[in-house]
Amino acid sequence: MTLPPALLNLLRQTFAADACSFDEAERLAYAYDNSRRHAMPDAVVFPTEHAQVEALVQACRAHRIPVIARGRGTNTTGATVPVDGGVVVSFERMNRILRIDPDNRLAIVEPGVLNGDLQQALKPLGFFWPPDPTSSPWCSIGGNLACNSAGPRTVKYGSPRENTLGLRAVAGTGAGFRCGTYTSKGSTGYDLTRLLIGSEGTLALITEATLKLTPKPSGIRTLRATYRDVGAAARAVARIMAQPVTPCALEFIDDVALKLARDYGGEGVPLAGAMLMIEVDGEPDTLAGAAEAVSRAAQGDGLEELKVAQTAEETQALWSARKALSPAQRTISPNKINEDVVVPVSHLPELVDGIKRLSAKHDVLIVTFGHAGNGNLHVNLLPRDDAERERAHACLAEVFALVISLDGTLSGEHGIGLIKREFMPLALSPETLGLMRNVKAAFDPDGILNPGKLLP
Amino acid sequence: MTLPPALLNLLRQTFAADACSFDEAERLAYAYDNSRRHAMPDAVVFPTEHAQVEALVQACRAHRIPVIARGRGTNTTGATVPVDGGVVVSFERMNRILRIDPDNRLAIVEPGVLNGDLQQALKPLGFFWPPDPTSSPWCSIGGNLACNSAGPRTVKYGSPRENTLGLRAVAGTGAGFRCGTYTSKGSTGYDLTRLLIGSEGTLALITEATLKLTPKPSGIRTLRATYRDVGAAARAVARIMAQPVTPCALEFIDDVALKLARDYGGEGVPLAGAMLMIEVDGEPDTLAGAAEAVSRAAQGDGLEELKVAQTAEETQALWSARKALSPAQRTISPNKINEDVVVPVSHLPELVDGIKRLSAKHDVLIVTFGHAGNGNLHVNLLPRDDAERERAHACLAEVFALVISLDGTLSGEHGIGLIKREFMPLALSPETLGLMRNVKAAFDPDGILNPGKLLP
Repeated sequence: MTLPPALLNLLRQTFAADACSFDEAERLAYAYDNSRRHAMPDAVVFPTEHAQVEALVQACRAHRIPVIARGRGTNTTGATVPVDGGVVVSFERMNRILRIDPDNRLAIVEPGVLNGDLQQALKPLGFFWPPDPTSSPWCSIGGNLACNSAGPRTVKYGSPRENTLGLRAVAGTGAGFRCGTYTSKGSTGYDLTRLLIGSEGTLALITEATLKLTPKPSGIRTLRATYRDVGAAARAVARIMAQPVTPCALEFIDDVALKLARDYGGEGVPLAGAMLMIEVDGEPDTLAGAAEAVSRAAQGDGLEELKVAQTAEETQALWSARKALSPAQRTISPNKINEDVVVPVSHLPELVDGIKRLSAKHDVLIVTFGHAGNGNLHVNLLPRDDAERERAHACLAEVFALVISLDGTLSGEHGIGLIKREFMPLALSPETLGLMRNVKAAFDPDGILNPGKLLP
Repeated sequence: MTLPPALLNLLRQTFAADACSFDEAERLAYAYDNSRRHAMPDAVVFPTEHAQVEALVQACRAHRIPVIARGRGTNTTGATVPVDGGVVVSFERMNRILRIDPDNRLAIVEPGVLNGDLQQALKPLGFFWPPDPTSSPWCSIGGNLACNSAGPRTVKYGSPRENTLGLRAVAGTGAGFRCGTYTSKGSTGYDLTRLLIGSEGTLALITEATLKLTPKPSGIRTLRATYRDVGAAARAVARIMAQPVTPCALEFIDDVALKLARDYGGEGVPLAGAMLMIEVDGEPDTLAGAAEAVSRAAQGDGLEELKVAQTAEETQALWSARKALSPAQRTISPNKINEDVVVPVSHLPELVDGIKRLSAKHDVLIVTFGHAGNGNLHVNLLPRDDAERERAHACLAEVFALVISLDGTLSGEHGIGLIKREFMPLALSPETLGLMRNVKAAFDPDGILNPGKLLP
């Protein structure tokens, strides 16, 4: 595609020379994301102000040119790959923390602020923003909102949808607008805020977000429990979530993943049929009681060892191993298929058993770990050659069918993007998809925003 | 309006004789709600199944006849008044608790289940559903979802938008659909669940809800603090919310409301410039620390007395007085104007001072109390005759302008309905309202669902 001259002119008027690129080498850098899919955009722009985004969308709409919002491209679903060309809008320079207001427990940020930078800024004030993807040091808040990205703490503190008060954005119509509130409660019209969160840039481009902050508990305790097999660990997860003390992290790691983590993290990582990492937080005098309650629930058939991390270093080592799992898998398979299915926690034992069965049936290596407290597991298929890749795709379809049969859904925190949209009809009825298409048309009547994503 | 014969036939085929009424006396009972506005519907139906609602909406759409969903009519905004006639759909007989699943912390209910009945059913299992409007014994879950109704516990546990996992519904297109998940986390397409919550029956009729349950803390402690004046109490609220221990209720009651409560609740209710009721919950061994933290924050200039309720009876008496405030005001003014504005908590002092000023300026009695921890105050204007009523309306417009100038919004938990929609342009820009109208058209292209509500 070549951009129309009138649009090129507008881009050059709206953006400074160093904030607007048509150069092939630079465009290439914005052609792919962590999905490893790629497609060349026709231009990349780097806005620093809301008004630029409005002008851009209005002009692109007039010329029917795709507009693709991009945070830092850490998503794994191809959500930021410009499959139909067009203009990639990288928010990396729109990265100011506009206000931190601890009295009202909110922060107002531009979309390019990195998750980790926000957490650092909040720390001295005793607050945090709960969503904490593994990629937090290098993923942006805008990207977190676009994908409803979560992380380990979601089990207790919720995802971006539960932790965002309001947004400023530009719809596909070209209209700039605000939605939501600066208050912790509101019932003034439709909830457009939550509608935009998780919409992967297909309805509007977020230019500002008012985030709800949570006081950071002053104490934390980390436990690790190893089990004979994945089924025993999954049954323990269901028991832990059925009692009243909600852990602030409840991570599951299967036997294959443990071996990988040990290669990376050293002998501190145990070898077992499966491991749980359980964390509880609160005021220091409450931790012993909370740890005891989750320990009781963690016990049962198949438990091999339960220990409380004694030092900060020990806790750190456990988390390093857990956080290294994603990159470590790349060493086995550059073509890993990285899923994030969810089922109700009581169905986790059936899910992990089913995955073991499908792994054997299709002869594909599968590593399973993740946020078990939400029933959200990262199911990673690791094909090592073309034949395995073909088998992996057949296996994946059966994994999704299993998840749906267990009252689960396709994605817990990665979103749909390019890669999972063909599976959407498994999870959603034609009626629900039809209404989603109507909503898309309500915000983006000409279909210019991130075409080819989310909806099948 | 007379209903077309073909529609009458369909109603008679779809609903049993005792589930479909055209009788004037019965229609009259469904002509009004707690707003005291009224308008006659042409028919009232009492579905007991989702399929009946689908058939009804499809037929009404074919004939362009309004369809008005109704819970128990406890809303104060006229949201269920059939201003253009049509068919009122009363969900009072669709009132089964379909499943309580403590292992997955969810309950599946029909919309006519009363909030209080659900809480009773959950109690022996150690769970609760956080939204707790004052009307909980006689308001329905469907109505709570339609208005995003909240209550005192929202300050810690959130509103229906934070406590609902999924819905089944019928859109204005006539399409029945499911949205959301049975899991505690999900990122599979647009969040239609939250979009329907708070949409006041203008997008779809909810026929089933999957609610997120919360473990009920085993301990609770109630404090009451009296202050010299409303400003001192409002500043204490801001201090309490700026420290890390989040109370599970933080209610504000002004001097006028205290006098009313004392008339009703007896001498146990103190007379003061203003009072706060502060409640903390948790495991028993954490309560002393939590109560101490909020007590420290409650102290400061203007505090007159701070005491911890010593007995369950004392706590009960405090809450009875608080809960009696709404009905008690009717004895002063049957025409009370009942608002539920919200501002960021740090702006509460300016809000309560401004309201006192406007009350004096317009010579209108105003009673102010409510969920101060969310910055959500019930501002009740109590005109006693026609002249005062006129002044009250002028005063109300200035109250809303004040709230917006303080970064607040029109409604925290009542919604907009019939009564506040003319004020929507104060809170929302033409662009935001335009997108809301597009969303309305996406779900209800012929505008048959609850016409004349929410959008101006």
